[in-house]
Amino acid sequence: MHRELSRLVGAEHVLEAPPGSPYNQDAARRRGAEGRADAVVLPASAAEVAAVVAWCYAHDVALTARGGGTGLAGGAVATQGGVVCSLERLRGVRELEPALWRMLPEAGVSTRHVQRLARENGLFFGPDPGASEQSQIGGNVATNAGGPHALKYGVTGAWVTGLEAVLAPGELVEVGGWAGKDVAGYDLKSLLIGSEGTLGVITAVRLRLLPAPEAALPLVVFQGTRAEGCDAIGEVFAAGLRPSVLDFLDGDTLAIVAGAYPQMRERSGAPAAGVPAGAGFALIVEVDGTRAEAEAQREGMLEALADTAVAVHEPLDAVALWRWRDGVNPAVTSVRGAKVSGDVAFPRERLLEGLERFDEIAARHGLRSCAWGHGGEGNAHATVLVDPASDEELDAADAVSDELYKLAAALGGSVAGEHGVGWIKRGMLESQWDGRAVELHEQIKRVFDPKGLLNPGKKLARYAAPPSPSISTKGTA
Amino acid sequence: MHRELSRLVGAEHVLEAPPGSPYNQDAARRRGAEGRADAVVLPASAAEVAAVVAWCYAHDVALTARGGGTGLAGGAVATQGGVVCSLERLRGVRELEPALWRMLPEAGVSTRHVQRLARENGLFFGPDPGASEQSQIGGNVATNAGGPHALKYGVTGAWVTGLEAVLAPGELVEVGGWAGKDVAGYDLKSLLIGSEGTLGVITAVRLRLLPAPEAALPLVVFQGTRAEGCDAIGEVFAAGLRPSVLDFLDGDTLAIVAGAYPQMRERSGAPAAGVPAGAGFALIVEVDGTRAEAEAQREGMLEALADTAVAVHEPLDAVALWRWRDGVNPAVTSVRGAKVSGDVAFPRERLLEGLERFDEIAARHGLRSCAWGHGGEGNAHATVLVDPASDEELDAADAVSDELYKLAAALGGSVAGEHGVGWIKRGMLESQWDGRAVELHEQIKRVFDPKGLLNPGKKLARYAAPPSPSISTKGTA
Repeated sequence: MHRELSRLVGAEHVLEAPPGSPYNQDAARRRGAEGRADAVVLPASAAEVAAVVAWCYAHDVALTARGGGTGLAGGAVATQGGVVCSLERLRGVRELEPALWRMLPEAGVSTRHVQRLARENGLFFGPDPGASEQSQIGGNVATNAGGPHALKYGVTGAWVTGLEAVLAPGELVEVGGWAGKDVAGYDLKSLLIGSEGTLGVITAVRLRLLPAPEAALPLVVFQGTRAEGCDAIGEVFAAGLRPSVLDFLDGDTLAIVAGAYPQMRERSGAPAAGVPAGAGFALIVEVDGTRAEAEAQREGMLEALADTAVAVHEPLDAVALWRWRDGVNPAVTSVRGAKVSGDVAFPRERLLEGLERFDEIAARHGLRSCAWGHGGEGNAHATVLVDPASDEELDAADAVSDELYKLAAALGGSVAGEHGVGWIKRGMLESQWDGRAVELHEQIKRVFDPKGLLNPGKKLARYAAPPSPSISTKGTA
Repeated sequence: MHRELSRLVGAEHVLEAPPGSPYNQDAARRRGAEGRADAVVLPASAAEVAAVVAWCYAHDVALTARGGGTGLAGGAVATQGGVVCSLERLRGVRELEPALWRMLPEAGVSTRHVQRLARENGLFFGPDPGASEQSQIGGNVATNAGGPHALKYGVTGAWVTGLEAVLAPGELVEVGGWAGKDVAGYDLKSLLIGSEGTLGVITAVRLRLLPAPEAALPLVVFQGTRAEGCDAIGEVFAAGLRPSVLDFLDGDTLAIVAGAYPQMRERSGAPAAGVPAGAGFALIVEVDGTRAEAEAQREGMLEALADTAVAVHEPLDAVALWRWRDGVNPAVTSVRGAKVSGDVAFPRERLLEGLERFDEIAARHGLRSCAWGHGGEGNAHATVLVDPASDEELDAADAVSDELYKLAAALGGSVAGEHGVGWIKRGMLESQWDGRAVELHEQIKRVFDPKGLLNPGKKLARYAAPPSPSISTKGTA
């Protein structure tokens, strides 16, 4: 295998992947979601990706496409073995047309670089999933990644006007383009967006951009309780306000990250003395637009939230505030050495009920829990803290996750808000979708990937665990 | 058939459809796109739609779903015979939650009613395809309809968070919901949006709404030539402005509708004396937002367009201006009794080239042409005027259309911008898409509709005309 792949991409671009290799992990590092890649291939171009896919398809070798490896669902690891195809060398920006508000980066360009190039040209790329230095635009599209600003600006897919992808059995295909409207065919572009490498390998992305908002004004608004916090989210919408961000941290999360709270000021201008006593919930709000518009929205926001606010803080430095927000995930992880986060979405008005019932589930399984996420979208990262050395706790965490996904589906929400399905949530779709839709999900997979070689085991609508190999069935014959 | 269908929906809701019945036509009334329905069925509920689809599927009868019949591509007529299933009786609004910015109308609710309900509740539904009194939200979703405001607010699909649809062989299925983010499965919702009844029958739609902009300020800006007009479109984007509408009328269109031009005023406040002499192109621009923001955008717009503007008019009555804009289609039709419009999209910067080459094509075929559309999206309704009694002219118009679609594809655009593919553009996708994508298009159809009974002959990626029955091939044996 190595020799043949070397012929396609050069020997120095075919790597071994021993156990523990970063190419066998993603950012979740969840038990059971370790890869066992037979080789890691680093093609330099879309044509080389096509050659690698064609070779794998001809030789019945599984292929798992991989971006920056910042995923949290075990989507980019070769759990079934085979080849990991890392897009990291596809770093060209093939087109950047500020006057036309568009950019065509290859899959391996980092999310941060896309954001930066847009900004340097007076433009704006809205999606802002975490770990943007490491994450890649191809992976963002493949998972349809979200982030705080998705509330106003939509998830990654909303910015994609076209894709270049390698489809089985190894053909480079374009779908979409730069035209502003296109209803010529079924929406294959949207099918590929969020398909997590199970339908094809994205090699380049046509992105539309927008003029950068003149001002973006963040606030942190604290409430006494979770119920008041969720009420406050509702008030924002009822008041007809359009924040760009409306994230939340519940009281347990707030307690974990309070020590790292950045320098802020009160509305009076006085320095804030950290997270206020009595705060049991916090909203991180951002309003944007022209300066006048952003200020008007801020005034509206303060009015809408006045009844429930314990305190309102403004950052001295917005960058520090967002760094604090980005630090929630690692901070929560470090409390007990590991965490198991379920990324689910509820209809917004059922967020409170979802969070309360999640707490009950975690408590019933004896685990400490917390939750944060994107309140405006009802998107919660519902988390239990665990000792990574305790199989018992990890088992309990899996049981909590399972109940959480079923809860999200039962409340009319989604088992996967923005982190994808990957390996970790295989089979969960069945609790959310009707039977015929589940069937179609599987049939679409077979149409795109008749041999089942593209990221096998991932984004499965249904999953029946294979009989445990430790139980011999031979003796029963 | 009538007796059995009557059992499902009541005898008074099963109609005959003789030749010339409105149920056998759409708004294009194109030659060769007449329906020949064996029956028209008017179910009262999603459950009845499911029963009708199930009956058709069990009895190998074709079924064509139909909304308001305002389509322009022959999508909603039973060209292959069978049952027309009109959604006009599904007129319930199952949910309207202004504080949650959402509405759940059934398929047969008129587009205008959706817009009105939103407005009455301080909200806004952006999509505004023409003929909104007659067109229905289900049909808008099934065709992914556009309209002028799609520039800023997106086409219909961008407002859909979930669908209820009947899928073959007759199951009522929900995809999507109210959660603000959802990556749990492949994007079946987007596959159904724009599928023109060939993958399933949409029965209800979850729509997200937005707070209504405080002010919307329209302008008409005239240029001397098409080239200057297309330059002006580019200037708007280069200046970082975000109009909600940026429509165009070319000089030939302007000449046709000049007589109906509404009362307008010059920038000085003086009444405008109609379409100005020397105007060879016009842009209909709207900016919106808070009043201050809209006014700032208008100032920016006037500055960006100053170099090329022959005149700038403001309406005394915006409604009259939009009525004039809506009247373009019938006015152009009435010049010679008929027209053949090709709805295509070019990358915005190639709009001028597209329009110029279309003119050459029409002239070469001896037909008078004109074009108008949505300049910000590069979306042109490129039209030839014909005598409906002249087969020769109609043949020439078909030849023009064929060249136009190939031109759009060759320039990196789309053969179908916002009016769908239907029957009229069957097979045109092949000139736009790569071979493997065309294959997948067909395979997806087979997966959703294995018997090929859902709106047969429509939205075909490839089409080989059957051998003409008038040419006998028997004698050659």
